[in-house]
Parts: sequence; C-alpha cells; structure tokens
Amino acid sequence: MRNVKLTLEYLGTNYYGWQIIPGKPTVQGKLKEALEKILQHEVKVTGASRTDAGVHALGQVANFKTVKEIELYRLQRALNGILPPDIKVIDVEEVPSNFDSRRWARGKRYRYRIFNRDVPSPFEYRRSWFIPYELDIEGMREASRFLIGVHDFSSFCKKDRKREVNPLREVNEIEIFRDGNTIELVFYGRSFLRHMVRVMVATLVEVGRGKLKPTEVKEILEERNRERAPFLAPPDGLYLEKVYYGDYPY
Amino acid sequence: MRNVKLTLEYLGTNYYGWQIIPGKPTVQGKLKEALEKILQHEVKVTGASRTDAGVHALGQVANFKTVKEIELYRLQRALNGILPPDIKVIDVEEVPSNFDSRRWARGKRYRYRIFNRDVPSPFEYRRSWFIPYELDIEGMREASRFLIGVHDFSSFCKKDRKREVNPLREVNEIEIFRDGNTIELVFYGRSFLRHMVRVMVATLVEVGRGKLKPTEVKEILEERNRERAPFLAPPDGLYLEKVYYGDYPY
Repeated sequence: MRNVKLTLEYLGTNYYGWQIIPGKPTVQGKLKEALEKILQHEVKVTGASRTDAGVHALGQVANFKTVKEIELYRLQRALNGILPPDIKVIDVEEVPSNFDSRRWARGKRYRYRIFNRDVPSPFEYRRSWFIPYELDIEGMREASRFLIGVHDFSSFCKKDRKREVNPLREVNEIEIFRDGNTIELVFYGRSFLRHMVRVMVATLVEVGRGKLKPTEVKEILEERNRERAPFLAPPDGLYLEKVYYGDYPY
Repeated sequence: MRNVKLTLEYLGTNYYGWQIIPGKPTVQGKLKEALEKILQHEVKVTGASRTDAGVHALGQVANFKTVKEIELYRLQRALNGILPPDIKVIDVEEVPSNFDSRRWARGKRYRYRIFNRDVPSPFEYRRSWFIPYELDIEGMREASRFLIGVHDFSSFCKKDRKREVNPLREVNEIEIFRDGNTIELVFYGRSFLRHMVRVMVATLVEVGRGKLKPTEVKEILEERNRERAPFLAPPDGLYLEKVYYGDYPY
C-alpha cells in the first residue's frame, strides 16, 4: 500500500469546513470524491486540521492510501482537473506507510488577517475581518505575551458537549504586525483547541480597541471559563498556513 | 447644482463591465441605482473609464450632479450600505461644476497581474491570469520599450464597427516586475483604446514565452493590423488602478 501526502490550498468561503458532513459541500468531501473518481476504489482521507466553515488554507496537509501505481505528477494533475477552482493540490509526495498527517503533526502555523480601513474592500470580502476602527498594535502585542506557553485554554475554546478534551495547549509564538491596511496575527502552536485561534484574535482585538487591558487577558486565561472571553473572530480572516512535521522550529 | 466626484474599488468578476447594459448587472448601473435610491431623483453617472466585463478597479473615478444637500460622508456611508460587497466607494469629494471625470482625465494607470506557478491558486481565481510556464521578464521589458511614446495602436485595439476612432495614443511608461509567484505589468498612458492594455499584455507574454522576438513587437505596431497581434489577455488580471487629473507625472 502506498501512502500519499497532499498539500492543499483552499478558499473556505463556499464550504462547511474541512470535515465531511453528508449532503453538504466540504473540502474533505470534494477531495475524497475526486480521489475515488481517479483511483476507482474507496479512499479514506486524513487531514492534519479540521478547519471550520469559512476558514481558508494555504498549507493544509492530508494523506490517503492506495494500491494504484499512478505517477504522482499525473495524480496531482488529474486531481486539480477535477477539483473546483477554490481547492487546489499544490504538492504531492509519497511517504512512509505509517505517516499520519494528523497524528504526526508537530506544530501548526495559523495566520489571521484583519482589514483595517474606514471602508471595506471588494478584494478582501470573505478573506479578512473588516475592522474600521483604530487598533493599538503595541497593546495587542503586550497582551499576546500572556498567551505564550503551556496553559489551560478552557476560556478560549468551544465547549465540546460530546467528549472531554484536555484543555492544556502550548502556544509557542504570536506575531502581530501591520502592513498597509492589513493587520496580521500569526500563531505558532503544537496544536489548538476548537475555535481557539479565533477567540484569541477576538480577545486581542478587544485589547486593541481599548475595551480590555492587556493584563485582563491573563485574568481571562486563569479563570478557565469560556463565558469570560469575548465573542469569536469571523472565520473569513483565518488561514491554516503550515503544518510542521520534522521541521517545527519550537 | 453640486458636482460630486466618487472614487471606486470593484471586483469586476460578476459584472458586464462598467457601462450600463439594460437588463444586465453593470457597475455603472449598480451605482446609478444606489444614488437614485438615496437622492430620490434621476442621476446621470459619468465614469472615467469604461472597463470591460470582468475587469477590476482600484481607483475608478465617477461623477454626478445633485441639488440635494446631503453631507458627503453620509452619502458615502449610505452608498456603501446599498452597494454590493464587490463595489465600494472609497472616496467622495465635491468638485467644480464643470469637472467631468472622463474628459478631465490627464492619464491612467492600469495594472495587469499574472499568476506564474505550476498550479493555479484558489486565491487568485478570476483575479489574475494563470500562466504555468516560465516567462523571460528581461525579454518582455525589452519588447515593451517599442510601445512607449505616441504610436498608431491599430494593431492593439478592438475594431469599432460603429465609428472611426483615432488610433493614435501615447503610452508613457510600462513597468514589468516579478514579486514571488506574481508578475505585474503596469501601464501609464494618457488614454487607451478598447482592449489595448490586454492586447499589449498578450503580446508581451508571447515574447516572454519565446514565441515572438522583442523586435517583432515593433513590426506588429508598424503593420497597424489587429490580425497581426496575438489574442487578448483575459480580463481577470486587469485593474484600473488610478485616474490622474492634475497630478499625472508625464
């Protein structure tokens, strides 16, 4: 059995997220469909990250197994021919049979884009969070330092009603910078809880607009209560940028 | 009568171009509709450039007249509330009553974006021309020099069956550069014939891929025959970036 690793870019706007939901368009669903059409056997697709509805990817990683002898460049070309314009396979690679894109991931990098101008941009629609008011970048940076390290992130995640999830996570770095009208927040972490990046972004934005003091982020974290942290930043601005395997810098 | 100048951004993908076509979505049509809804009188909208179907704008300029006393920032806010997400008014200004966005324009800057990688990008779909093969930027630059100056651009424009158009035009500068996977061509000119930028781009791309020699561009220009020049670059990559009035640098 060959094990094949795929690297994907997608614009999440038109999908109910990564994971298959019967009867709804999802990225995993489109990929599975395309693979089964090419390989003519059932395919189980594993993805590194279950991105939510509307969330984008610049470097999602997936893997699947096949007995077929198809050359990888042909497989990639066939996939990109079948996949819709908003999902593309940018790299294909054969990997050891025990490689699992989800379990082998050592770290992930997410990028969150804020479009910060008085008027929204037609080119940024559904691709960033439009915020017309001024943000204090320095305050946001100061607040972000409280999130670095291993913490109980219960305040920053969607409560899972079905199962207990270990709320301990390690955030290794948060970079925040402005480039023209765009403000970007880059998160490096071993793994993230559901909604965690978007709640961290919303919290840092509350600091940026002066509604929270930087030190209050520390308090919110320590309270371990989802009710305490602000709402959720919209999915439109979130990009899964890279999944690290051997090469995670932290 | 107040004369109001608007600066607009739009993603042209969903429109049959700038100019009103009864029964079809056009940018001028959407703008006229929104203005009439706010001002409650008939409005004549003049635009600086009649961008074609699928062509985008980062700085289209339009003007219209009104007797209404509405404050400009309120007008802008109301317009952006009514206009769809792919059309936005980024600036509003009151101008002398004889200002005409079309006739007063001293120069225009167009940008053409090529996405140059082996695989198309979901984020560039309908926003650039996808070209998977290598392009010789130096050769394109060399060829572009033959287009600078005042020339008869008959070889580079759509033949107008209804009326004779003076084919003399002045191109002041063409910049071509690569930034990662993107190649951009920037054109400065007093005015351009219909399709002229897109035929120039297609011709320079033919040079870039080695199908034409740089000096052949000079021959094509001198032949004054539309049949001689290559096809048309797709509208997806073309952006009307700026309309110059007093401030044209050439």
